[in-house]
Amino acid sequence: MKQPNDTAPLRIAIAGLGTVGAGVIRLLNTNGDLIAARAGRSIEVVAVSARDRTLDRGVDLSDYAWEDDMSALVARDDIDVLVELVGGSDGPALAASRAALTAGKGLVTANKAMIAHHGLQLAELAEGKNAPLKFEAAVAGGIPVVKGLREGTSANALTKVYGILNGTCNYILSEMEETGADFAETLAEAQKLGYAEADPTFDIEGIDAAHKLAILAAIGFGAKVDFDAVRVNGIVQVRAADIAQADALGFVIRLIAQADVEGEGKDARLLQRVRPCLVAKDHPLAPVDGPTNAVVAEGNFSGRLLFQGAGAGDGPTASAVVADLIDIARNEVGAPFSIPVAQLAAFPAAEPGHRMERTYLRFTVNDRPGVLAEITAAMRDADVSIESLIQQGRANQGGDVLVAMVTHEGPEANVRRALELLKGSDSLTDDPLVLPILPA
Amino acid sequence: MKQPNDTAPLRIAIAGLGTVGAGVIRLLNTNGDLIAARAGRSIEVVAVSARDRTLDRGVDLSDYAWEDDMSALVARDDIDVLVELVGGSDGPALAASRAALTAGKGLVTANKAMIAHHGLQLAELAEGKNAPLKFEAAVAGGIPVVKGLREGTSANALTKVYGILNGTCNYILSEMEETGADFAETLAEAQKLGYAEADPTFDIEGIDAAHKLAILAAIGFGAKVDFDAVRVNGIVQVRAADIAQADALGFVIRLIAQADVEGEGKDARLLQRVRPCLVAKDHPLAPVDGPTNAVVAEGNFSGRLLFQGAGAGDGPTASAVVADLIDIARNEVGAPFSIPVAQLAAFPAAEPGHRMERTYLRFTVNDRPGVLAEITAAMRDADVSIESLIQQGRANQGGDVLVAMVTHEGPEANVRRALELLKGSDSLTDDPLVLPILPA
Repeated sequence: MKQPNDTAPLRIAIAGLGTVGAGVIRLLNTNGDLIAARAGRSIEVVAVSARDRTLDRGVDLSDYAWEDDMSALVARDDIDVLVELVGGSDGPALAASRAALTAGKGLVTANKAMIAHHGLQLAELAEGKNAPLKFEAAVAGGIPVVKGLREGTSANALTKVYGILNGTCNYILSEMEETGADFAETLAEAQKLGYAEADPTFDIEGIDAAHKLAILAAIGFGAKVDFDAVRVNGIVQVRAADIAQADALGFVIRLIAQADVEGEGKDARLLQRVRPCLVAKDHPLAPVDGPTNAVVAEGNFSGRLLFQGAGAGDGPTASAVVADLIDIARNEVGAPFSIPVAQLAAFPAAEPGHRMERTYLRFTVNDRPGVLAEITAAMRDADVSIESLIQQGRANQGGDVLVAMVTHEGPEANVRRALELLKGSDSLTDDPLVLPILPA
Repeated sequence: MKQPNDTAPLRIAIAGLGTVGAGVIRLLNTNGDLIAARAGRSIEVVAVSARDRTLDRGVDLSDYAWEDDMSALVARDDIDVLVELVGGSDGPALAASRAALTAGKGLVTANKAMIAHHGLQLAELAEGKNAPLKFEAAVAGGIPVVKGLREGTSANALTKVYGILNGTCNYILSEMEETGADFAETLAEAQKLGYAEADPTFDIEGIDAAHKLAILAAIGFGAKVDFDAVRVNGIVQVRAADIAQADALGFVIRLIAQADVEGEGKDARLLQRVRPCLVAKDHPLAPVDGPTNAVVAEGNFSGRLLFQGAGAGDGPTASAVVADLIDIARNEVGAPFSIPVAQLAAFPAAEPGHRMERTYLRFTVNDRPGVLAEITAAMRDADVSIESLIQQGRANQGGDVLVAMVTHEGPEANVRRALELLKGSDSLTDDPLVLPILPA
């Protein structure tokens, strides 16, 4: 329960006044009374910092002290918590975050890159100082899924955690589904509408989803955050024709981030990957469209739990930031990754070659006799069993033809071996696309 | 953060050893190490109590003290928390719960009826004694939705909370959809399979969902729990023909529990109701089938959040019970209803007559001339505008015919007035069925 000496306002400083920073201020202004009632005390912005003091951000900043320098913000002795909304895995954000925790202040951040790369070190600092560190907003925007895994499923050994963690990719894939347009065109449209950034690399190549997955995996499996071990495939290779094929077969295509632990004790291995997958239309993740995010956690007692909501945007992200602040005001804080850093396991990365899965394979080939025989022979030689095969008529200007197939369940390594056998074949006009089929 | 003196085991007593009680013991045995790591200390069962000591429950009870009498269990000075899994809104469960809190012990319960009826009083007791009271398992089984509203959406003013809160009804409705069978037959089948109890009244009449809704509404809107104000319609009247009609119109039928607050300050009114509704097939609640539960919370900053999972069963319910225990072990506890009881608002109940909605209406009528004219005249006189009307051919043995229609959006009171006008008409062979259409 709240300690009697904790009725004084929780004093915060906000570093970074982009849309999320301004959103936090707007939220605190709009819902202030409610928040004070729930938190047991008011949450007060004391000071702010951003690059440009003159910019109009649509919120009144005149009541707050302004610091040009983030480090000066942290050095103030009238703040309890730093809200870090600057972004970037290193640099000023990391320096200020370290400084805040070192000074025993709390830290709330929406910075997934920083937590994916330096979360363990920051959590160690926080634990040493008994200072709260919280990062709900770093994963899946407004969805309370960090809390969901840290506290909601805390009684469970999780069998897996997976979901749709990048709103940009999900918007692009579901738009392609809707319109039949190809990737480049849809990306351009998404950029125009603000669903994709000017430089979309981190999103479309799956890095952003990988940041978030590494954080969820750490909490869900009691593992040390291991971003570098995430195997990442983005969505750039997905064509309109793949989405049409998937649709005909009863699937949609979604960028799925998934983590699980195989083996036990010393043999335990953590597998983390981000891949576009075929998702059956009756799977709970299939109807998740647009910039929505969703996370599935499967516990050994809870069964399958689904958390779904807005994956980004100033309102939802501010909602997550302030929920963290309310937890801190309530003194409901503990080990940032659920288990103290010293006790998190350092799982080696799993080698998934023996994993069984069904796979969608798409080849772009020259339209000439013998190509199909060549591909199917490679499949046979690598012990890949084909469930269905679709050869399309001449589809595009290049004169090449799509051959798509779905395999029976088999070891992933076999599919890789088949592709090795086909490597360098002049029948193929482009790299084959391999999309796993997400189990039901 | 966890206080240094809180590394001693959390000692619990379990009252009630039905499937959930046995599930809690099995869970603590299976995941004990993990739980100790996450909780920062072990959770130890010290004593148990149930009606029949000789029954084999599939778990080894020999390590625990046995008390025939629940009150003796609570009186023990070697327990920190009572886990109440006996059930029943009053009687021994309530007495033991009161006694535990009065003695300053914690209380974890899965008892929705007790919390819906006596939750405020228990929370007041708990707050006065600084003792934790938690009831995640009382709502939606294994889904952490009490936590979701208490902490996940804590920064938001909610615009509404709604969802599928009764697994039995959802199983029956989605089975009817699947098989085309009628209600009575499907209920019997559900009873055979264990999805419905021998006396299914509380479930099929919507009382169970109303208990859960009253709890969620209190947390979500900062309201005093007001179970008596919940307007409840069950699913008994829903026929296979209604489900077929809904399907043809692009809907499924789900029992929806919904709460919202209209007006502000002194004019604020709380509306809580449980009704079968038509749910558009592209709504996130439409694919929720079988005994699954799902809750949507719409916040003014978070937007729409969805929590979904198993609504009942020993594993999921035990998962929620033990999550509460872990929170207590971590000292992450506070006001049970998010805001201290003294500050919860006593909203008067809203009168929804002015609310605008689209409605599905189904009449069973005598197959004779003029009936349709009579019904449509009543609609006209009550200012109900008909969007589409379907008259079925002679459908059943009684020789009566179904007339179904969907209205344009209009005040609920108008539909009620139209039904008043038709009351006593000898054209109608049964009470009309009125199902609102859930907004997108």
